[in-house]
Amino acid sequence: MAIPEIAKLGHFGLVSTDLEKSLWFFKEVLGLEETEEKDGVHYLRAWGDFEHHTLTIRQGDEAKLDHIAWRTKKPEDVEGFAKILEESGTPITWNEEGIEAGQGKAFRFKMPSGHTLEIYYEMEKTLADPKSRSVLKNQTHKSWARGVSPRRIDHVNLLSSLPANELADFLMDKLGFQMRECVEAPDGSLVAAWLSVTALVHDVAVSHDPNAASTNEVHHISYWLDNAQDLLRAADILKENGIFFVGPGKHGISQAMYIYAIDPGSGVRVEIFTNGYLIFEPDWEPIVWTLDEMDIGFTYWGDQTDTKTENNPTIKA
Amino acid sequence: MAIPEIAKLGHFGLVSTDLEKSLWFFKEVLGLEETEEKDGVHYLRAWGDFEHHTLTIRQGDEAKLDHIAWRTKKPEDVEGFAKILEESGTPITWNEEGIEAGQGKAFRFKMPSGHTLEIYYEMEKTLADPKSRSVLKNQTHKSWARGVSPRRIDHVNLLSSLPANELADFLMDKLGFQMRECVEAPDGSLVAAWLSVTALVHDVAVSHDPNAASTNEVHHISYWLDNAQDLLRAADILKENGIFFVGPGKHGISQAMYIYAIDPGSGVRVEIFTNGYLIFEPDWEPIVWTLDEMDIGFTYWGDQTDTKTENNPTIKA
Amino acid sequence: MAIPEIAKLGHFGLVSTDLEKSLWFFKEVLGLEETEEKDGVHYLRAWGDFEHHTLTIRQGDEAKLDHIAWRTKKPEDVEGFAKILEESGTPITWNEEGIEAGQGKAFRFKMPSGHTLEIYYEMEKTLADPKSRSVLKNQTHKSWARGVSPRRIDHVNLLSSLPANELADFLMDKLGFQMRECVEAPDGSLVAAWLSVTALVHDVAVSHDPNAASTNEVHHISYWLDNAQDLLRAADILKENGIFFVGPGKHGISQAMYIYAIDPGSGVRVEIFTNGYLIFEPDWEPIVWTLDEMDIGFTYWGDQTDTKTENNPTIKA
Amino acid sequence: MAIPEIAKLGHFGLVSTDLEKSLWFFKEVLGLEETEEKDGVHYLRAWGDFEHHTLTIRQGDEAKLDHIAWRTKKPEDVEGFAKILEESGTPITWNEEGIEAGQGKAFRFKMPSGHTLEIYYEMEKTLADPKSRSVLKNQTHKSWARGVSPRRIDHVNLLSSLPANELADFLMDKLGFQMRECVEAPDGSLVAAWLSVTALVHDVAVSHDPNAASTNEVHHISYWLDNAQDLLRAADILKENGIFFVGPGKHGISQAMYIYAIDPGSGVRVEIFTNGYLIFEPDWEPIVWTLDEMDIGFTYWGDQTDTKTENNPTIKA
Repeated sequence: MAIPEIAKLGHFGLVSTDLEKSLWFFKEVLGLEETEEKDGVHYLRAWGDFEHHTLTIRQGDEAKLDHIAWRTKKPEDVEGFAKILEESGTPITWNEEGIEAGQGKAFRFKMPSGHTLEIYYEMEKTLADPKSRSVLKNQTHKSWARGVSPRRIDHVNLLSSLPANELADFLMDKLGFQMRECVEAPDGSLVAAWLSVTALVHDVAVSHDPNAASTNEVHHISYWLDNAQDLLRAADILKENGIFFVGPGKHGISQAMYIYAIDPGSGVRVEIFTNGYLIFEPDWEPIVWTLDEMDIGFTYWGDQTDTKTENNPTIKA
Repeated sequence: MAIPEIAKLGHFGLVSTDLEKSLWFFKEVLGLEETEEKDGVHYLRAWGDFEHHTLTIRQGDEAKLDHIAWRTKKPEDVEGFAKILEESGTPITWNEEGIEAGQGKAFRFKMPSGHTLEIYYEMEKTLADPKSRSVLKNQTHKSWARGVSPRRIDHVNLLSSLPANELADFLMDKLGFQMRECVEAPDGSLVAAWLSVTALVHDVAVSHDPNAASTNEVHHISYWLDNAQDLLRAADILKENGIFFVGPGKHGISQAMYIYAIDPGSGVRVEIFTNGYLIFEPDWEPIVWTLDEMDIGFTYWGDQTDTKTENNPTIKA
Repeated sequence: MAIPEIAKLGHFGLVSTDLEKSLWFFKEVLGLEETEEKDGVHYLRAWGDFEHHTLTIRQGDEAKLDHIAWRTKKPEDVEGFAKILEESGTPITWNEEGIEAGQGKAFRFKMPSGHTLEIYYEMEKTLADPKSRSVLKNQTHKSWARGVSPRRIDHVNLLSSLPANELADFLMDKLGFQMRECVEAPDGSLVAAWLSVTALVHDVAVSHDPNAASTNEVHHISYWLDNAQDLLRAADILKENGIFFVGPGKHGISQAMYIYAIDPGSGVRVEIFTNGYLIFEPDWEPIVWTLDEMDIGFTYWGDQTDTKTENNPTIKA
Repeated sequence: MAIPEIAKLGHFGLVSTDLEKSLWFFKEVLGLEETEEKDGVHYLRAWGDFEHHTLTIRQGDEAKLDHIAWRTKKPEDVEGFAKILEESGTPITWNEEGIEAGQGKAFRFKMPSGHTLEIYYEMEKTLADPKSRSVLKNQTHKSWARGVSPRRIDHVNLLSSLPANELADFLMDKLGFQMRECVEAPDGSLVAAWLSVTALVHDVAVSHDPNAASTNEVHHISYWLDNAQDLLRAADILKENGIFFVGPGKHGISQAMYIYAIDPGSGVRVEIFTNGYLIFEPDWEPIVWTLDEMDIGFTYWGDQTDTKTENNPTIKA
């Protein structure tokens, strides 16, 4: 049997303690589109996302990501990953088709760190309703319809009180991610790592923080903007709506520009992300940053006030 | 033996009838960096390119691309492709390591249309000299040093008096490209097709023009800018330097924005290219545009004056 | 008595043959805010305009600008201009305070070309309602709330079958405008002129077209965007909403970038305008462009398709 | 005799303790053009400046602005201001024509705070040399030729250990400036004020800092960029060249975006400035910010690290 492969980050399953406020933030301020609402779950996506949804939001007692979903390259890869994980002692839980709207059969499991991931292949590529549909047949919704208006889902950043190696190794060994950049301590342990299965520098990053609230926190989820200037427009929109944010700034690692905004409903941090580089070289060697280089790696320039974890509590995944 | 795979577009081998003017255009106006000059061949790259070069320029009697080079995913894929091509009756010509500076063993061959391609794997990832080197360890040269300052090589567009199907089929069947978008005539034949082996909508496009000067013309080569605004800055720079160009505008197909500038030395058209979408879906179905939709597909908005072939002669590849 | 002075362009009084469509265009697509509706007249302004309105729209049998209003520097300048105009044989018509909502006593008159102007001083600086109000106390409405979202009114361009000199001379002699740039024919007559009382290169331009429909046409009215990139975003928004437009491009004269969009309700052309230079030199000499230089003067680069009058009918003022 | 009037900010006279480094910073990194060098003084301007120079730099023992020059509206205003100042007991010092290259007769004097100003009218509008000259006849030099590439001089910010009222009152009473915005303490004293004679929100700002090194410090001088995006490009250029800077960010007051960069030769802080609003209303009432509102007034969003005076020593004027 062929080795199963992950194709891409699929979606985030967000639980909010204030659904109404989260929907206002993600739909009106960020400008995501709602594909449908079913059984209290709201299915959202950006105007350039092709799948049925890249974010679900539902009300709950504790804010968290109840799953981070990954799409496989082939239909049979779902079973393939299930087998690999079960054989290595990781329990999995199947969800039948339709449990999540638009999605086929899928399963969820916990990383050794406790972060909940989901593996799926089948997902509807739902057309936008005619009023919202783009005049371009290769684009889902009209762009720039509302708010910040990101193009698409980008990545997720996992935070843990565990060494980052434990998370990175699992992602590489079991799920086939490649390390693209990392920050390494003198003892060789990883402070943080950026990994991908695509040409993006990272589909997922893992960060170690000894003060993290648990082994399975989410530092942020991220959506992509096409242009650096769009970040400055986003800053104005966030400020006019009273949203707390850090940025704009530019990372050395990934060379991408950022704003970190906090959803006032769930407390989840959302990185609005743009520019940066793509990796097409097949023999890419991870860029290794030392602790001395970490500052420029994290913030090449720009606003970094209040990025400390204690000022910006994280949610679990 | 595993099926060989192409990883990425590598470089263009440009022959110019006015080397000095072409070097001025590519280095001073566009802002590419010169890695080295060897035996009359100038090896250039953009500030964000990682390989030794993405463009070579040498003096010659006829302006042309003497090869368009593609990097394989694995070292053994070079032999793999050689075998496939020879077995299907395509003659190949080997170049030993170092014939092209920085590059390992490679071979060239002609597509059925006559376009000359090159297949290689080994290529030095040459560091920039200290004066030009970026302070970021994941970036080759300083950005924004000079002129338009694109980040990296992007794609090539092949023009032919042959039906586009003949070019597209070869690229898909023999080299593993996937069709991402196309324009289809009522009889099912292709007017143009956009194909890739990466997440880009196209690494190569093929266009049919019954009035094309030959079966093996190049419509344009392309370099990538990070931001739409950078195109407007580019327009000013091109105009101040007396360079003829068409644009700025936005394609419907690929959703990318463009300027087409003509190198006054060789006459090759260079598309300065930005924005657009990436394809991460593993089950991507080609977007098919009809002749009626072709206009919006080619030019969603913006300047398209003088795009006719007779006003903008092409060069051969 | 001191010489009366014009301080600035105030507003446009637009009559539309399809009020509903014009309101949709100006409010939803362009993104102007409505201050109030009174007696069938809708009072609009951009988010950064300080006055009660910069555009009024009402239903009528013929699309036209029924007045173009100019604010004086001092209250007594209104009477001052009335005296000058009447003494030179120009009939004027007074409007009492409140005839136009938010506005004090004002008068209207026709230029020798027939264009109707209005002179006023008193105008409410109405606060935005709390929901739309900016968090910044020096800004009227929240920016980026909707559509293209220009910052402020910019200028007006008058078209006439009369020689441009006749319009320019009146504006300079009677109203104190200064000529900033012009296109001059070999016989010394003006093809077009750009004039201002402010630091802008033009608050008003006058253009001669022998094929103009009358002596008193409006080529376009104009609103200002802060950034060149905002034009590219505007192009996407206009296209998604099915609005016909020309551009983006850059004028040589004024150095400003443009898109010309047509209001589908009234047919008035609206120039979305950005960048360019300001004039602070007190001894500014008009920049004179010859007919040979006119092409680069009008279009430095970019899209200029269909700018011919016969393709883009104008409305009267 | 008519009341004399200031037309605009003219230029800065910078003395650097490391001329070579300052020239590298202003010419290569910022990208100003050198009109000429005469008697050890280098005369620079931005590509869109019309006058002979907007910045002079010479070597000296102490870094300072030895004058901040203002151009009058009329030739006779120079004598007019001289008379007013002398009559009110302010000593003035005349410089004959040509003492400063390109400039006519001028005089210098000290504000009560000790800041040295210069008043002049005559100044050559020197053409750029053919190689650097723009193809546009209304633009001085080619744009985007080198480095950050600002369009023009913008404003100056004076810092003082004196109450800001003392500086603002002098500028309003003697030189005719109008207050546009200010920060006011509960006792009615001014913390800072923004004043102009043009449509800009400020040609000059005055700031009170009880810890200022003297009564006559310069917080920064400023050059203008056309677009917000240009700031992000500037940040990359500054970082690659090892220049310390704060930003990017956006002021509430003026609504303009900024980067503050330090010239490594003289230590003068240069604000790269863009966007914001213009004032055309003749009855503008100063926007008054309270101490509570000061934070958002100074930094609407963005990086403000290390803006404390002790981290960023100022130079005298």
